[in-house]
Amino acid sequence: MRAYPHGGGTYIVTKDNLGIAPGSLAAGALLSDYVLTVAVSISAGVAAMTSAFPSLYPYRVELAVAAIVLLTVANLRGVRESATIFMLPTYAFIVSIGALILLGLVSLAGLGPQPHPIQTEVPPPSSPLTLFLILRAFASGSTALTGVEAIADGVPAFKEPQADNARTTLLAMGLILAFLFSGITFLSYHFRLVPNERETIVSQLARTLVDGSPFYYVVQAVTASILFLAANTAFADFPRLGYFLARDRFLPRQFRFQGDRLAFSTGILTLGALTILLVIARHASVAALIPLYAVGVFTAFTLSQTSMVVHWWRSAQGELRRVPWHSLVINAIGAVVTGIVTVVVIVTKFTHGAWIVILLIPALIGMMLAIHRHYVSVAEQLRISSEEARHRLRLLPRRSVAIVPIASLNRASLTALAYARVIADDVTAVHVATEPETGQTLQQRWREAGLTIPLVIVDSPYRELLGPLVAVIEKLHREKGGPLITVVIPEFVPVHWWERLLHTQTAWRLRRALAQIPDLAITMVPYHLRD
Amino acid sequence: MRAYPHGGGTYIVTKDNLGIAPGSLAAGALLSDYVLTVAVSISAGVAAMTSAFPSLYPYRVELAVAAIVLLTVANLRGVRESATIFMLPTYAFIVSIGALILLGLVSLAGLGPQPHPIQTEVPPPSSPLTLFLILRAFASGSTALTGVEAIADGVPAFKEPQADNARTTLLAMGLILAFLFSGITFLSYHFRLVPNERETIVSQLARTLVDGSPFYYVVQAVTASILFLAANTAFADFPRLGYFLARDRFLPRQFRFQGDRLAFSTGILTLGALTILLVIARHASVAALIPLYAVGVFTAFTLSQTSMVVHWWRSAQGELRRVPWHSLVINAIGAVVTGIVTVVVIVTKFTHGAWIVILLIPALIGMMLAIHRHYVSVAEQLRISSEEARHRLRLLPRRSVAIVPIASLNRASLTALAYARVIADDVTAVHVATEPETGQTLQQRWREAGLTIPLVIVDSPYRELLGPLVAVIEKLHREKGGPLITVVIPEFVPVHWWERLLHTQTAWRLRRALAQIPDLAITMVPYHLRD
Repeated sequence: MRAYPHGGGTYIVTKDNLGIAPGSLAAGALLSDYVLTVAVSISAGVAAMTSAFPSLYPYRVELAVAAIVLLTVANLRGVRESATIFMLPTYAFIVSIGALILLGLVSLAGLGPQPHPIQTEVPPPSSPLTLFLILRAFASGSTALTGVEAIADGVPAFKEPQADNARTTLLAMGLILAFLFSGITFLSYHFRLVPNERETIVSQLARTLVDGSPFYYVVQAVTASILFLAANTAFADFPRLGYFLARDRFLPRQFRFQGDRLAFSTGILTLGALTILLVIARHASVAALIPLYAVGVFTAFTLSQTSMVVHWWRSAQGELRRVPWHSLVINAIGAVVTGIVTVVVIVTKFTHGAWIVILLIPALIGMMLAIHRHYVSVAEQLRISSEEARHRLRLLPRRSVAIVPIASLNRASLTALAYARVIADDVTAVHVATEPETGQTLQQRWREAGLTIPLVIVDSPYRELLGPLVAVIEKLHREKGGPLITVVIPEFVPVHWWERLLHTQTAWRLRRALAQIPDLAITMVPYHLRD
Repeated sequence: MRAYPHGGGTYIVTKDNLGIAPGSLAAGALLSDYVLTVAVSISAGVAAMTSAFPSLYPYRVELAVAAIVLLTVANLRGVRESATIFMLPTYAFIVSIGALILLGLVSLAGLGPQPHPIQTEVPPPSSPLTLFLILRAFASGSTALTGVEAIADGVPAFKEPQADNARTTLLAMGLILAFLFSGITFLSYHFRLVPNERETIVSQLARTLVDGSPFYYVVQAVTASILFLAANTAFADFPRLGYFLARDRFLPRQFRFQGDRLAFSTGILTLGALTILLVIARHASVAALIPLYAVGVFTAFTLSQTSMVVHWWRSAQGELRRVPWHSLVINAIGAVVTGIVTVVVIVTKFTHGAWIVILLIPALIGMMLAIHRHYVSVAEQLRISSEEARHRLRLLPRRSVAIVPIASLNRASLTALAYARVIADDVTAVHVATEPETGQTLQQRWREAGLTIPLVIVDSPYRELLGPLVAVIEKLHREKGGPLITVVIPEFVPVHWWERLLHTQTAWRLRRALAQIPDLAITMVPYHLRD
């Protein structure tokens, strides 16, 4: 925060300090993490609901998808992450879980109400179970830490002095989280609670201490709402990162668009769609999602810590003139620890789904680098100096040539012919006769109307329309020469959209076929039909 | 056949004699019947296969869908209904089923091999069972009669004298069918065979008489292949009727297209898709499809018989000068009988699925009449006399106006500006500044390059692009006047299709937004990018 008071986040820190390739690795890890944050938070929130109401358990995937759709729509409509919306459930969560832990400690001390340890059919103890427990601990920890990342990204939103306030908040949050987390872990261990797919640890603990009381439902409701709000942070973070990446030309330009409600619609929709796919694929199971989550989270942490080490080192060459050893050492320890955790997670969780993320992140990076290369190449090809621009506009062709493909002599084709006569000195009409009669009929009408525009008729024995048309246009293009030839396409525009289906859209298909020929301007001259 | 030697079919006969509305009723009934012909024939063919190999029964829907896909692809590639393809299985079917019936009769008379009546768990006898049996009889009869309809449609394919040869074929076919149908019915009754979903009557009869012998498998294979060929007739008939309907402007023009293999692709694909939907919806069950089939078949028969009565009656006013009473009475009896059957089928089978067809046919008719109205109106609006055409081309505007929307000064926009200068005397460039800087930058570059083309900059505080652009183009259109204004849109064309996704297609979206404004020609000036 001291180094990046204007809001950095892992991507910007990494790109600035380590360069484009590690920056895109950080971006790939973060993008997949935001998707997983939503998936894990929503699945955990739904688990809090189904723990309280077990009859909802069979509908957990549907519930999770509905919650994601709701969040997507709310964010598209511009519901913003405001302090007040967040504050109330956060305080409620801290107070109610804190109360639960105190109640548990009091009970353990033999004071206050008697606990009723619940009976769960304990699965046969085996080593995977222990690993699974550690994994659950990781899960809760990681979810909490994602909240920390959100604070780093949002530094500018804090009151002046921004860095100080943000650091105070982060410290307080860290201490509270440490208390809640260790409290729940300690009590779960003492009451011998075992996490299972059907009931969360918090729900089991609450049932042990206050089963049947309204407070049990308060705890569940508060847990579910804080998790849904945690998912909502990703709906702010993902599109914002998408914007930064699009600005730096690593993602399609569409991610830069802000609508009139200032929401990054493309990013929000992309996040919603990817999360729904993931939740369906992993059956809204927190346990099945955690291995995927851990990889991305720890990769991002390792990169940002490493970047900060580089940052402090380089700052010695900058205005500071001395290496800030204190900060550098803290970040170096952070980089080593998170780096080791990342490797451990990748190795141990590879077959539990981590492989998905390990394949996905390089694919994302490849995509982003390809997009970057494309945008840079386009910008280079389009760049023009002011001198050349002036020069080019002076060198104009002296005459202009137009070709008008027509199907028959009607009001639409006549409008196109008239237009061509206005914009060009040399106009040729072309007709592809898919049946011999149509050519003869057209020629006769041409004579009757006494039209002086030359008419070229091409026979198409195999009834093909576009191929011969493109061929004759290419031939005329070669014969007539000139730097730019205009193909004037008559088009009639129906009133209702469904009426479009009744016409064969020859104008459009021709336009698409001609798009690949260079130096060919294509003009659509519309003829608007009435009702 | 005497009245329509050039191939009539129900639709043409009805439209000519009863008018457009009954014609479209006949067309609607026939279109739904062709779909049902395929569905019923394929389902019955698959039933013949699964009777012989009961282990395939669970995959009957998949088998039916695969068969339809195969027929669709074959017909798209132009496999045509040729006499030889049809002759062999037809003769094989007549000979093998005939042999089976003779064998049955000989067995019943106590001569030859002893029959082994198979044991089926007979379901408790109830009235629906009897109705069901009658329904099955209808089914076989209807399927056979659809072959008759195919002969009526294909009169021109017979040797001269066409009508006589077709009638001889029809008579012979009728007699053979009557023998096979009554033979199977008689033997089934005597051996107390009860049709069920898992085994067809023909399979049961063959097992009773020749169980285990290769002849049993021959009978099943021949039955399946004749049924698949029966489905194939609809793949010729449906697209041909679609062509007639499109020619008469009752269906979209696409149904008229014949590719280089002379197949009506649109009709074939439509038939294939509809049939697959139907087979899936009705689980490839012949019993579930028959009620739907009967409604359409008998509606079409009633209409064609009634039309022939009207035809013979009217012919008295024509060249014949006398009413051909003999023919008229035969068709009148036919009309009354099929009319009564239609009503009976609709009433008794309404809840068994007939309602689907009874709702679908009016919907089809409404659609066809709406399509007809649209095409007639378009043709009237586009029609122009030769005098008016000549006159219109003389009255040309004296000056031409162009508007060029540009995002920045680059090679693509400069090409468009140069083009506009060639085709128009009055060129204006417009720019929508979604961010204030872009407008200032452009103005500065404009000055640096010393461009004389007027540049209009529109601010868009809400970052919207298309709305302000369309508004300024409409405003300039009003100010400049003129019968036709050209909007010249710079467009850069990437090399690979996927690269298109990386650009926001502003050119295309602008083109679509402008399409609704009258008297606006839209020109796309392409700038081709390199790799």
